[in-house]
Amino acid sequence: MIIILTASASDRNRRDIIENLEARGFGVHLSEGVEKTVIGVIGAMDEQKAQIAEQFEALPFVERCIPISQPYKLVGRSFRPEGSTVNVRGVVIGGKQAVVMAGPCTVETEAQILESARAVKKAGAHILRGGAYKPSTSPYSFHGHGVDALKMLAAARAETGLPIITEVMDARDLETVCEYADILQIGTRNAQNYTLLRAVGECRTPVMLKRGMSAKLEEWLQAAEYIASGGNYNIMLCERGIRTFETYTRNTFDINAIPALKELTHLPVIADPSHGTGKASLVSAVTRAAVAAGADGVIVEVHPHPEKALKDGAQSLTPAVFDQLMADLRLLAPVVGRSV
Amino acid sequence: MIIILTASASDRNRRDIIENLEARGFGVHLSEGVEKTVIGVIGAMDEQKAQIAEQFEALPFVERCIPISQPYKLVGRSFRPEGSTVNVRGVVIGGKQAVVMAGPCTVETEAQILESARAVKKAGAHILRGGAYKPSTSPYSFHGHGVDALKMLAAARAETGLPIITEVMDARDLETVCEYADILQIGTRNAQNYTLLRAVGECRTPVMLKRGMSAKLEEWLQAAEYIASGGNYNIMLCERGIRTFETYTRNTFDINAIPALKELTHLPVIADPSHGTGKASLVSAVTRAAVAAGADGVIVEVHPHPEKALKDGAQSLTPAVFDQLMADLRLLAPVVGRSV
Amino acid sequence: MIIILTASASDRNRRDIIENLEARGFGVHLSEGVEKTVIGVIGAMDEQKAQIAEQFEALPFVERCIPISQPYKLVGRSFRPEGSTVNVRGVVIGGKQAVVMAGPCTVETEAQILESARAVKKAGAHILRGGAYKPSTSPYSFHGHGVDALKMLAAARAETGLPIITEVMDARDLETVCEYADILQIGTRNAQNYTLLRAVGECRTPVMLKRGMSAKLEEWLQAAEYIASGGNYNIMLCERGIRTFETYTRNTFDINAIPALKELTHLPVIADPSHGTGKASLVSAVTRAAVAAGADGVIVEVHPHPEKALKDGAQSLTPAVFDQLMADLRLLAPVVGRSV
Amino acid sequence: MIIILTASASDRNRRDIIENLEARGFGVHLSEGVEKTVIGVIGAMDEQKAQIAEQFEALPFVERCIPISQPYKLVGRSFRPEGSTVNVRGVVIGGKQAVVMAGPCTVETEAQILESARAVKKAGAHILRGGAYKPSTSPYSFHGHGVDALKMLAAARAETGLPIITEVMDARDLETVCEYADILQIGTRNAQNYTLLRAVGECRTPVMLKRGMSAKLEEWLQAAEYIASGGNYNIMLCERGIRTFETYTRNTFDINAIPALKELTHLPVIADPSHGTGKASLVSAVTRAAVAAGADGVIVEVHPHPEKALKDGAQSLTPAVFDQLMADLRLLAPVVGRSV
Repeated sequence: MIIILTASASDRNRRDIIENLEARGFGVHLSEGVEKTVIGVIGAMDEQKAQIAEQFEALPFVERCIPISQPYKLVGRSFRPEGSTVNVRGVVIGGKQAVVMAGPCTVETEAQILESARAVKKAGAHILRGGAYKPSTSPYSFHGHGVDALKMLAAARAETGLPIITEVMDARDLETVCEYADILQIGTRNAQNYTLLRAVGECRTPVMLKRGMSAKLEEWLQAAEYIASGGNYNIMLCERGIRTFETYTRNTFDINAIPALKELTHLPVIADPSHGTGKASLVSAVTRAAVAAGADGVIVEVHPHPEKALKDGAQSLTPAVFDQLMADLRLLAPVVGRSV
Repeated sequence: MIIILTASASDRNRRDIIENLEARGFGVHLSEGVEKTVIGVIGAMDEQKAQIAEQFEALPFVERCIPISQPYKLVGRSFRPEGSTVNVRGVVIGGKQAVVMAGPCTVETEAQILESARAVKKAGAHILRGGAYKPSTSPYSFHGHGVDALKMLAAARAETGLPIITEVMDARDLETVCEYADILQIGTRNAQNYTLLRAVGECRTPVMLKRGMSAKLEEWLQAAEYIASGGNYNIMLCERGIRTFETYTRNTFDINAIPALKELTHLPVIADPSHGTGKASLVSAVTRAAVAAGADGVIVEVHPHPEKALKDGAQSLTPAVFDQLMADLRLLAPVVGRSV
Repeated sequence: MIIILTASASDRNRRDIIENLEARGFGVHLSEGVEKTVIGVIGAMDEQKAQIAEQFEALPFVERCIPISQPYKLVGRSFRPEGSTVNVRGVVIGGKQAVVMAGPCTVETEAQILESARAVKKAGAHILRGGAYKPSTSPYSFHGHGVDALKMLAAARAETGLPIITEVMDARDLETVCEYADILQIGTRNAQNYTLLRAVGECRTPVMLKRGMSAKLEEWLQAAEYIASGGNYNIMLCERGIRTFETYTRNTFDINAIPALKELTHLPVIADPSHGTGKASLVSAVTRAAVAAGADGVIVEVHPHPEKALKDGAQSLTPAVFDQLMADLRLLAPVVGRSV
Repeated sequence: MIIILTASASDRNRRDIIENLEARGFGVHLSEGVEKTVIGVIGAMDEQKAQIAEQFEALPFVERCIPISQPYKLVGRSFRPEGSTVNVRGVVIGGKQAVVMAGPCTVETEAQILESARAVKKAGAHILRGGAYKPSTSPYSFHGHGVDALKMLAAARAETGLPIITEVMDARDLETVCEYADILQIGTRNAQNYTLLRAVGECRTPVMLKRGMSAKLEEWLQAAEYIASGGNYNIMLCERGIRTFETYTRNTFDINAIPALKELTHLPVIADPSHGTGKASLVSAVTRAAVAAGADGVIVEVHPHPEKALKDGAQSLTPAVFDQLMADLRLLAPVVGRSV
């Protein structure tokens, strides 16, 4: 941590700060420039640093405090430089294979999820997605069939062998969802719901943590640290687009985040071009882009009849378009040293 | 709802859509222009509109669907054109008085919260704020003293008579918090935590709903509709700054939102310049601005010793600065037809 | 300037950097922490700092370079701590009076600008605004009457005595515009048009520099530094709203910027609530807010017949509404130690 | 164009609007719903639509006006559904080949640009980039060697045969730059400098128009329309990242924009991952992503000695890394039906 004093800080101010820091047991390193004085603080723990920064920035003679190390540890790249993998019923995420998760936004009927599961399995997908509990901006919209939908997903898994991923929105539903789900999804609106993050940190089911729609990479990694600090290390991150001024697309898919996360964390990185664009016509191009940029997997909305979908029809692919996308990915993955 | 077809839509496409809509019992109004065809849908309920929009936008010959009415009802201005008020132990929010809530970010000790309560009461504040459960970006930071802090707040209320506002983060804590709090605060990170919104909708304690840091006004009002649709009409909205590209301030306080909300909703509007700026030196100016723009109240962080604050010290006012701010507000409020 | 090395930097890396810096004549201050090494560079000029930062950040063992002083000098607060004023035909901007500039977006006809000038003069405005050269997003829109409009403005000044402010978009028009204008306006789309900034820096007519719609405060102040470094110190800054994700308003007026600029620069700060909101119904509230936050003046679009305005009718006030706003400001200004 | 009236509009209001529109010669189509009345306007020209929208939105009984056709024509996809190509000394942009432009940010010395040109040519690049006139946020930074740099670029072209692209910032320099450049670049800060756009519209040298850092796709296409409406159809668009809240990267590369532009316009689309990320370590991944998403070309900063670069060293690739990137692209391009 570095503390920069204002040009008007007095000798007395300087001495006060240094004495305060030394009294707390930190090493102090003073560097006096022509304009400004810089104080380096040595030996502070992360939680202490945040506290020091907050306290000291309130002082009128402190210009700012700059942390020089990352505010997350367990999920940082240096914790496992070789990268980590998550094993879901034999499907390895974060390894050589680029993993494809596909299926409808929402589980509507048993027939619909079975038809979807067969279609995505036939096209080559590895994991089935489908929403049982759905967050909706309006209280009057459809919110998912809940536990009934979980049972339909389990039936689709029984028939196709595809592991299933589904969203959990409420810590009180967690036990139920864990009975059925192979991967828990934390959605963008709950990306800083720390109560829920702590709860999934205490179970051992793998978790796919979506990015908050206005979360910086550093905040997202700290949200993942909540889960890891509970002892659940089976975490994947999912880039799903961020909120910007552009209105032509529903979100702006942050392609930079993929290689950036590969530098910052050892966790596998999944791309969600369906929400990242919000337009079916753009999904295939952005899916290819994500794999070319090094994503460990993708999650794509596929619906047998998008025009009848209860939710997110506008961004769902038909099985025929998804088939073509899988064919593209089979050619593309080897270019970046992967298979599909 | 209006459906705009693409220039390439065929007569057959047009006929299909119209038949589909009529079969569902909606009125249809066709308007054929030189370039494009526009279809008006009459008689659809809100929840149907969202569904129609999603389904139809997935069709290749539909360019876009435009809702023409607001996606919220109970909190809309037209529901109570005269505006609504919330009565908190005799303090009326949304009436002639601009209400001032003040206190420390976090309840640290009984001595600290008592000293704070006395100071803000003496300066003229109407309600005491203080955090018992604190959301923190890092899992390693301080998260509040929980129920012990609630008891300290109650002690401060007993002594000063000030009603108290405090944040609730988890539906499982709701019963406990309601025992002590006069106003429940929903924080920015939980602004779209629909589980929590539904839960506070079912109790009758007044709620102050902060804006999500990247929530559009329409999304924010739909979040409020979640609470209202549960039967709890005692809702205030709190503008606390949005996330933008500017980094000099912690957030960008959206002053436009204050008069805009006054047009869109009957709910009282509170301003939080402490989080809206993140810098103590800017808080007084933005508080004055909020009252001048028509806010029904403000919530301001005041700490007897900001340099020792466990959280958010950088944005807390000292009691002396807060005193001066209250003096300014007493002069300013009458200019906009209010008292303080 | 501070250089932070990565955890993996070797002793050799350290030595190389230090030797390079010393060879250039800079002082070097080394601070070795548990995790990372920090190097302070002493005695570098601003332009050298930017260059050092760019070069060194390209080295694999440098994590980042942090400038510790502001990248502008002439417009910085410390250059004139007491604040600067701009005198426009006797109207002093930046002094005790909050200055009001008002008029139509575009000069349409001599009758229109005369009617506007009389109306805003009668209501108490100090300066007349009106566009002769208009930037338009579409090439097919109206672009202003050019020099004819300048002459109409001059006629309105002759009759009312109000100094005039008008936009210049092209360095090639500068001489002509300077013949008529009392204040040159640089619009948001040209806020980083360095060619134009240099050109107005070389003349002596006062300049009002609008904020680029996605400019950080620091970038805006550097744009002002372009003008000042040419010798033209008669500069005002104009906050006119920034681009964010919110779509209900045309822009998000950054009220924080007003007190923030008062800390950072000595230049007078003007608020433009017409563009900052884009909606006539919000303009009065945000104008009051800006004055309450400490703005040195405001610029407001007023049109005698907004429904017939060629441009920006939706955000123009009628003379009657503007009259009421002026009455509000006369009450409000004294609260912040000003007159109108 | 569609006009939506407020719920409170009277019969008289309705009649007034219809008469006004009919008097101007437009067709009118009235659709009365349960809550609101919608008026369709038929036969208005684009420039009239903008004017109608502005006038009518100022009326208190008009809720909003919605244009239903695109505000650009010459650059719209429907103008040339098969896509357009730009031929630069035999290099065809927008055709089967994904075109690679590479070179240093700034032309520093003849030796530097020659060394760069040889390196990128050897690696397989098709066009040489290099800045002669450089926009800089600070007035005290380096601004390019101007005409001397143009001559050095011409020397590099003479030796290697690579066509050259270079930025023009000022209409007054245009004639000079056109003498040397094969492609004119309009930078992000001048993306809405309409004076400059009109000027390059009048010459016939191909133009690469960068996206404004906060420009929506629609605004960007209107900027391109400025150039096309002057008669210069040799236009390429260059996505270079947009400004968002994320600070880890310099900009957020908008990968969605690539397939979105392919739907909206016939112009070739180039990607600039160097500015789009601002970090050399991310450039290769995002370049691959852009080609996988369907970009017609890329522009990449390559510097023989990035650690010595006068500008943008942090985002420049070394020749060795660029070599590897070209090898990747040669494998990747065929997957999307292209060669490199």
